[in-house]
Amino acid sequence: MNNNYKKTFNLPNCFNKYNQQIDQGLKKELLHRKNPIYTTHEYYMGWNSLGGKYENHIGKRFRPTLLLLSSDCVNGNPNIAINLATALEYIHNFSLIHDDLEDRDKFRHHRPTVWAIWGDSKAIISGNGMLKISDEIMGKIISNEISKEFAIELQKEITLSYLKMMEGQYLDIAYENTLTVSIDQYLRMIELKTGALIESAMYLGSMTNLQQIQSKISEHMRIIGHEIGRIYQIRDDILGVWGTNKTGKPVGADLLRKKKSLPAVHALNTESSKIRNKMKSLFSSDKINQTKVNNILEIMEDIDTFKFCQSMAESHWYKAKEIISTLDLNDKSKKDLEELGEFLLYRES
Amino acid sequence: MNNNYKKTFNLPNCFNKYNQQIDQGLKKELLHRKNPIYTTHEYYMGWNSLGGKYENHIGKRFRPTLLLLSSDCVNGNPNIAINLATALEYIHNFSLIHDDLEDRDKFRHHRPTVWAIWGDSKAIISGNGMLKISDEIMGKIISNEISKEFAIELQKEITLSYLKMMEGQYLDIAYENTLTVSIDQYLRMIELKTGALIESAMYLGSMTNLQQIQSKISEHMRIIGHEIGRIYQIRDDILGVWGTNKTGKPVGADLLRKKKSLPAVHALNTESSKIRNKMKSLFSSDKINQTKVNNILEIMEDIDTFKFCQSMAESHWYKAKEIISTLDLNDKSKKDLEELGEFLLYRES
Repeated sequence: MNNNYKKTFNLPNCFNKYNQQIDQGLKKELLHRKNPIYTTHEYYMGWNSLGGKYENHIGKRFRPTLLLLSSDCVNGNPNIAINLATALEYIHNFSLIHDDLEDRDKFRHHRPTVWAIWGDSKAIISGNGMLKISDEIMGKIISNEISKEFAIELQKEITLSYLKMMEGQYLDIAYENTLTVSIDQYLRMIELKTGALIESAMYLGSMTNLQQIQSKISEHMRIIGHEIGRIYQIRDDILGVWGTNKTGKPVGADLLRKKKSLPAVHALNTESSKIRNKMKSLFSSDKINQTKVNNILEIMEDIDTFKFCQSMAESHWYKAKEIISTLDLNDKSKKDLEELGEFLLYRES
Repeated sequence: MNNNYKKTFNLPNCFNKYNQQIDQGLKKELLHRKNPIYTTHEYYMGWNSLGGKYENHIGKRFRPTLLLLSSDCVNGNPNIAINLATALEYIHNFSLIHDDLEDRDKFRHHRPTVWAIWGDSKAIISGNGMLKISDEIMGKIISNEISKEFAIELQKEITLSYLKMMEGQYLDIAYENTLTVSIDQYLRMIELKTGALIESAMYLGSMTNLQQIQSKISEHMRIIGHEIGRIYQIRDDILGVWGTNKTGKPVGADLLRKKKSLPAVHALNTESSKIRNKMKSLFSSDKINQTKVNNILEIMEDIDTFKFCQSMAESHWYKAKEIISTLDLNDKSKKDLEELGEFLLYRES
């Protein structure tokens, strides 16, 4: 039914372009460290197979790619950019280590998660440790040839976006136990949970031209990042309900755990009070089993939940695209940004 | 038997002296924030009784007190000092929120812990959020009238001591599943887990005289902090095995969870191979029950484990005292430091 939306989109070129640089940047900050805690980090980043026990898979490094792309758009300083990109990616991975535990996900990228291998306590500490690697990187940026004021600005941006991420994650968990989340509340929550870091990636990248800080472009990049963050999470929510072969997410995964992702919020806020009540009763059962998941999926099909979600993502992309078209960037940069947006809309991993 | 060691020591005067200042400093950073996540923080810091559900108890604010005391020793800048003290206390409380969860402790200061009230996921996120409050405070310090180089130095110190804390916590958990922890390994672990932040408190405090950074005194303060950190944790380990009425810790609490605290490490490394093997067999049982705890306590009595631990703490205190006596400080400061040390040796909470 929804297959026409499931076009296969390969990773855009910019992911390959920055891949090696990001990998080197990340490794430089971690591989020299000696303490058992860092084994968990090496494993999670995909550089340690634990004696061949598990294959090494890595994430797509979305946030650092975004940052480097944004930096290239303004001819930014590559040293500053790679440091910021690395700091952001470690913050992101720290949050994943904790997320996996909170959601009791045993696998990510087809590999056992940190808590699944080392247990809860070590997973918490492992995440906390990784977070501070990013602080050390930021410390190095400040020591660099940049001014104190600028360093403060960069650091404030990262601290604030991290804090927003925590606020959003907290709301996300809180919403699991309520049936009255509105679309607006949902959007505000994902802006914090997912959007903050993505927005920062775009914004920080565009600040890395030290000769000429183009505050107007930077503000636009932040807005584009804002839209991209929404698109990213909405598509994530779609994959969390209708599944994806690539990441191995099963159909209905988010429904089983009562996540108030966009599909659920849509169905719980639908016009018809009859359907709304049916949804509420399904979502308020102690445990949602496979039969109930199928029931929910049928209702969602009836009220076009999938189309609603996908078109919401698309509408955010059109907003972003409009801004991109007005920016004073070269054609290559614009093309890269557009390729990225199209990918995010239809990605399956 | 050990009652002669259980003298009652009241909190030294410096705890009262700085109490209000610390409380104000901490509240200023938190109480203006709006998001459900901060309710968990207000509660944990002792300023919110959740509608009268729980009494408000607070910790003794040991680390910020130490920092302000150290700052007063060098006539430090009180603004910088209170900011650093507040940052450190939030880092400490963040780590407690996670610790409670890792150890599955349902109570601290006679009140339910964050995970016990809000669940695991929210407790993880709550801790993560609190950590960043301290980063925001550090950001403000950097914006202050201090030089960039000095700001970098302060921040590096805090980041590094945090990272050491994580490395130590990780080792602590890892040691739960091994029987061959040596006294040296134990000391290294507590230096990281507990010592790092305490050492930093003493060091950072002594750096706050901006007119005259006395690097020699600061290095000595760090060494005193190093010793104090050891004393603090060793006394904690003693209370964790032989209990304390004040905090409500029951006798044998750490033994039940196989913690490789100093008493256990001492008993597992004792000279007699017969006793060593007996201890190893007790500690390698799947679950340590109350009978086994009593068994361990009897052996510890035979081999003078309590005296060994307490005298080790005392020996570290004599080292610290020697250094204090050589420092160029006024008599009041020396007296405060000595009162503090004596308290740490015999404290019951």
